[in-house]
Amino acid sequence: MKAGIIGATGYAGGELVRLLMGHKEVEIEWYGSRSYVEQKYADVYRNMFEIVDARCMDDNMEELAEKVDVIFTATPQGYCASLMNDGILSKVKVIDLSADFRIKSVPVYEKWYGIEHKSPQYIEEAVYGLCEINREDVKKARLVANPGCYTTCSILTAYPLVKEGLIDTDTLIIDAKSGTSGAGRGAKLPNLYCEVNENIKAYGVANHRHTPEIEEQLGYAAGRDVVLNFTPHLVPMNRGILVTAYAKLNQVKKADGSMGLPAYEEIKAAYDAHYGKEKFVRVLDKGVCPETKWVEGSNYVDVNFIIDERTGRIIMMGALDNLVKGAAGQAVQNMNLMFGIKESEGLELVPMFP
Amino acid sequence: MKAGIIGATGYAGGELVRLLMGHKEVEIEWYGSRSYVEQKYADVYRNMFEIVDARCMDDNMEELAEKVDVIFTATPQGYCASLMNDGILSKVKVIDLSADFRIKSVPVYEKWYGIEHKSPQYIEEAVYGLCEINREDVKKARLVANPGCYTTCSILTAYPLVKEGLIDTDTLIIDAKSGTSGAGRGAKLPNLYCEVNENIKAYGVANHRHTPEIEEQLGYAAGRDVVLNFTPHLVPMNRGILVTAYAKLNQVKKADGSMGLPAYEEIKAAYDAHYGKEKFVRVLDKGVCPETKWVEGSNYVDVNFIIDERTGRIIMMGALDNLVKGAAGQAVQNMNLMFGIKESEGLELVPMFP
Amino acid sequence: MKAGIIGATGYAGGELVRLLMGHKEVEIEWYGSRSYVEQKYADVYRNMFEIVDARCMDDNMEELAEKVDVIFTATPQGYCASLMNDGILSKVKVIDLSADFRIKSVPVYEKWYGIEHKSPQYIEEAVYGLCEINREDVKKARLVANPGCYTTCSILTAYPLVKEGLIDTDTLIIDAKSGTSGAGRGAKLPNLYCEVNENIKAYGVANHRHTPEIEEQLGYAAGRDVVLNFTPHLVPMNRGILVTAYAKLNQVKKADGSMGLPAYEEIKAAYDAHYGKEKFVRVLDKGVCPETKWVEGSNYVDVNFIIDERTGRIIMMGALDNLVKGAAGQAVQNMNLMFGIKESEGLELVPMFP
Amino acid sequence: MKAGIIGATGYAGGELVRLLMGHKEVEIEWYGSRSYVEQKYADVYRNMFEIVDARCMDDNMEELAEKVDVIFTATPQGYCASLMNDGILSKVKVIDLSADFRIKSVPVYEKWYGIEHKSPQYIEEAVYGLCEINREDVKKARLVANPGCYTTCSILTAYPLVKEGLIDTDTLIIDAKSGTSGAGRGAKLPNLYCEVNENIKAYGVANHRHTPEIEEQLGYAAGRDVVLNFTPHLVPMNRGILVTAYAKLNQVKKADGSMGLPAYEEIKAAYDAHYGKEKFVRVLDKGVCPETKWVEGSNYVDVNFIIDERTGRIIMMGALDNLVKGAAGQAVQNMNLMFGIKESEGLELVPMFP
Repeated sequence: MKAGIIGATGYAGGELVRLLMGHKEVEIEWYGSRSYVEQKYADVYRNMFEIVDARCMDDNMEELAEKVDVIFTATPQGYCASLMNDGILSKVKVIDLSADFRIKSVPVYEKWYGIEHKSPQYIEEAVYGLCEINREDVKKARLVANPGCYTTCSILTAYPLVKEGLIDTDTLIIDAKSGTSGAGRGAKLPNLYCEVNENIKAYGVANHRHTPEIEEQLGYAAGRDVVLNFTPHLVPMNRGILVTAYAKLNQVKKADGSMGLPAYEEIKAAYDAHYGKEKFVRVLDKGVCPETKWVEGSNYVDVNFIIDERTGRIIMMGALDNLVKGAAGQAVQNMNLMFGIKESEGLELVPMFP
Repeated sequence: MKAGIIGATGYAGGELVRLLMGHKEVEIEWYGSRSYVEQKYADVYRNMFEIVDARCMDDNMEELAEKVDVIFTATPQGYCASLMNDGILSKVKVIDLSADFRIKSVPVYEKWYGIEHKSPQYIEEAVYGLCEINREDVKKARLVANPGCYTTCSILTAYPLVKEGLIDTDTLIIDAKSGTSGAGRGAKLPNLYCEVNENIKAYGVANHRHTPEIEEQLGYAAGRDVVLNFTPHLVPMNRGILVTAYAKLNQVKKADGSMGLPAYEEIKAAYDAHYGKEKFVRVLDKGVCPETKWVEGSNYVDVNFIIDERTGRIIMMGALDNLVKGAAGQAVQNMNLMFGIKESEGLELVPMFP
Repeated sequence: MKAGIIGATGYAGGELVRLLMGHKEVEIEWYGSRSYVEQKYADVYRNMFEIVDARCMDDNMEELAEKVDVIFTATPQGYCASLMNDGILSKVKVIDLSADFRIKSVPVYEKWYGIEHKSPQYIEEAVYGLCEINREDVKKARLVANPGCYTTCSILTAYPLVKEGLIDTDTLIIDAKSGTSGAGRGAKLPNLYCEVNENIKAYGVANHRHTPEIEEQLGYAAGRDVVLNFTPHLVPMNRGILVTAYAKLNQVKKADGSMGLPAYEEIKAAYDAHYGKEKFVRVLDKGVCPETKWVEGSNYVDVNFIIDERTGRIIMMGALDNLVKGAAGQAVQNMNLMFGIKESEGLELVPMFP
Repeated sequence: MKAGIIGATGYAGGELVRLLMGHKEVEIEWYGSRSYVEQKYADVYRNMFEIVDARCMDDNMEELAEKVDVIFTATPQGYCASLMNDGILSKVKVIDLSADFRIKSVPVYEKWYGIEHKSPQYIEEAVYGLCEINREDVKKARLVANPGCYTTCSILTAYPLVKEGLIDTDTLIIDAKSGTSGAGRGAKLPNLYCEVNENIKAYGVANHRHTPEIEEQLGYAAGRDVVLNFTPHLVPMNRGILVTAYAKLNQVKKADGSMGLPAYEEIKAAYDAHYGKEKFVRVLDKGVCPETKWVEGSNYVDVNFIIDERTGRIIMMGALDNLVKGAAGQAVQNMNLMFGIKESEGLELVPMFP
């Protein structure tokens, strides 16, 4: 099987290359990078010295569609949508790591992203590639919208409780913390070492673009509109996202017929029902808080929760590697599903510690 | 004026030494450290080489009370309470950096800290040393309970809105992030470089000891009991605390007589009313999120807020240096107030960047 | 094939587990750890949750020898030597990650390590497991002394030039920089996050234990005694060793018959002669300086050099991951050689960036 | 006294502002920054919020010369030289933090910096502002060339031994390690957080521009030409430079008339002779290695040495904060000397730990 990557020199693109190097069924045919055309890929990412011999190619999606079985687009917002057409989709499967096909409502997309959507006709058929939730649809898809990093972590952390109606989604607050690779490889002052190191800050408060994506997906789970607060923070580390989510627990009927807060076991059962058979979602032991370091370099998401009886709230926590399960790993997982390959192929990486 | 420090070789004690070196009115008479008795202080903290010539002393509070004007106790919980007596308080002023005299209710203290309080008779007279709020009481105090680091940041971030009734305290959630010096200088595995670096985690979820302290103080501001969620996180950096706090805004009467969310200007006015004249609390410009790096090494607390009209919530943010305004700096500020010294003496440190 | 690990809960032991999880021919039978006997291994290293199900075992080498084909000892100096006997060596192959069998001279070992050697009778047969240099001997060994992390990097960086007589070994100076995982997982004050972060220092100056190991091995290459300076430094990062080595170039005969400094091509040819076919040693392109990040998580060593015509010196540089090629990876490489498995099995990890 | 800063928004410029805020005799009149003209300085460096109220000005040196007593130029190489003229020097004193007036030989400057020198006529009178060595000349200077960060650390570390002829300068090798603020605040890919964090590399090997500056100054001390190796490394930390320098000790006459290596006490005496009365150079206790963290935020340089009798070499070590003693602090120290102010005014900062 042959794959092409458009945007192979960003951090997510680079991670795709790393993962596909260890994938038995796939060969990378095309390292697309408009910024580095003709340069050796291993000169851009020297970890690939003597591993990748190819040079970077321009982003010619039409030509690429002739040559490969699957295209990954790890490109700025709007780029993939601007190139999509029937010809391409008739020839190859596309996994888009940008936000272009994640949001079903064009006005919502255009409002939060501030750009016009250039191919809204493909939004409907695009499958939101959160494998653990939309697995069957992904298998049949020819266009997958690979979820955002914050989004994957936020949704998977809260999903079972939203789905089972155990929390009041009107009270849902997601406080997220991300390593700096999520900001990309652009040479921008706020991402300089000296600006990020020994520092933590919130950003995109009340207006981060991953908000509507989380709301839409959790809305499907809830069966009603969800409006929530999402606050990302920049943390001085390379990789990792930690989500700390808060919500009021709904009262449930207890054994004696009275109403009350659900017990630990009831919440645990909800998580297990959804994730018990999932290889890549690990529901931790009671009381253990997820740490990003325990999943680094791997496709795992670690989730857990603690009930606060004093306030009637539950604190849900989730951790993943933003470049793996939050981007490239999930893209490979989607590819595996789309092509009938073993779902974990190329993804059986043990987290690296320390 | 002479000062004695009990616990001078912890990180907070070391910071006290650094600050007092730059204080015009105070000389340190006693570097107390049970772990390093007789050793040169500058061998424990080599930044003090050729600056501090003294050796560490044992923790003899009785003797110390004879020799100095003010005692700082930067010691484990319970230690200060176990030594306190009328004789000491009749001779010196005491500023306790531990939690022993912060909480007015003995049962609450004993429940959250898991130890018996050895001198409850002094709790009533102890003044909670959050200078910006209890300035006049601090001036008259002989025993000051210096607030916790998370607590100072949390309270100052939310105080004006709680005091003015602008938020619904039942919905208040505080998500806090701290540098690792807050964990102290004990040689414990979870604080090793390789365990903390490239990692973020929540800890003490729903049971961190600073919770009742925040609740008590905000309760005084609210005029009613406050019960909230407080979740601390460990961040891979040496210094700094960032608080991100969430609450529903209360409806206020608008100009046209209708009820609605308060506008930016109304919230800003509340912050300015309380902090406009405060040197050490900086209310940032509209839209600017506090970053811990901008206050590093200084006694400043930076606060700001963003209104989310979609959810009706306000996101309040605050940042300080946990060893300065969160510990030693505030202790010096309290000392200045107690002795009639200029409040900012020894604290006019410009934050260090980068 | 079955493997046992003694010292499975140190950082090198943990890395062995990570690597062996991805090895097709080996199963770990025994997770030895005296500190955590009976505890679940995945409670000690939570990255292994749902990956390793076993509990930690005591360090019973005799019992272990009955059960497995290979034993890895990742233990403090002196421990492996104290347990070694003919019975064990007749049953299993042993790969010792400590220094016990690295140095052929007992007095040298005892002087630098300050302990008595308990089984000097096995030193002679032990093979120094630097695969690229002693490959054929390793294949036949039943006891391999796995090289130190600084040592592997230092030797491989300088080896071709020493072997080919291109540098004057009397002028050889090795300035090395290491991430903090090299200091182990012991809870010691100097390894606390706040002590290491934002800091760099030299340590073990003129007396670090890896010095005689480097001198012995380079001495074999030179065919004469080598005495050199080796200075390690502690760097605020988890993984990675960088070696910067300096030496005077020997004069060589030039094409026109005169004597002069060797040209870039001559030096390059020496590196290529030794490493051209080596998978795990990458001689970088002209002018490219090795960076530890480019080999992180992998078994690669990147080496390169720059000639300074002004001083007549060559600056040789090498980078590796101290836990992989500097410890566990090399141990697996040795195991593969000893058991006739493909040398790179379990080690085809692409370096992780960023 | 009034000061103007040209280049006030670089890291060194920002540090100058921080230091001058605490200086009793000086007021900053002009915050020059071509990149941020008209913007509030505190919007560029938010640590200065409510501390600095001024806006950035264009770099008009002529106008500035009319308004202030001293001008600091913290600008790219060549800029200061291009503006210098008799008029300016007749009105104000100038302290240039760039390299323009550090090197006495124009060809050497032009070769290493690759630019033409625009005002060579002022090189002769410019005083090299390494206060501890050229104090008397600095006092009389109107144009001071403020030394480089690597340079200050390298020279002060080796100076006493070179001056006293205790080492063979032909064998001198300087291996230096720097925090990332030394690379400046430009938005360049290699300085991004994710590229620097968890990484160490050498750069500028055999061609770094600080080399001739070190050679020239040590040459004056030696009384002969010095040619050496200087290798800088980039370390994942904000601030700090560590120098590890190696040289062969010269034989000295011993008490019994024989020749031999100098003893510890003889070397120590040389350091003490030069630095015993220097406030800002601390010669550490025997065996203690300098660490950058112990001088962070301060104007101190910590130096020490270890004799290796096996190799006959001495390892000299030095640590400083590259933005303070390595740039802005030394500039203030020079200013104090030039204007007859107490030399340590504004510089009595206690190093911050952790």
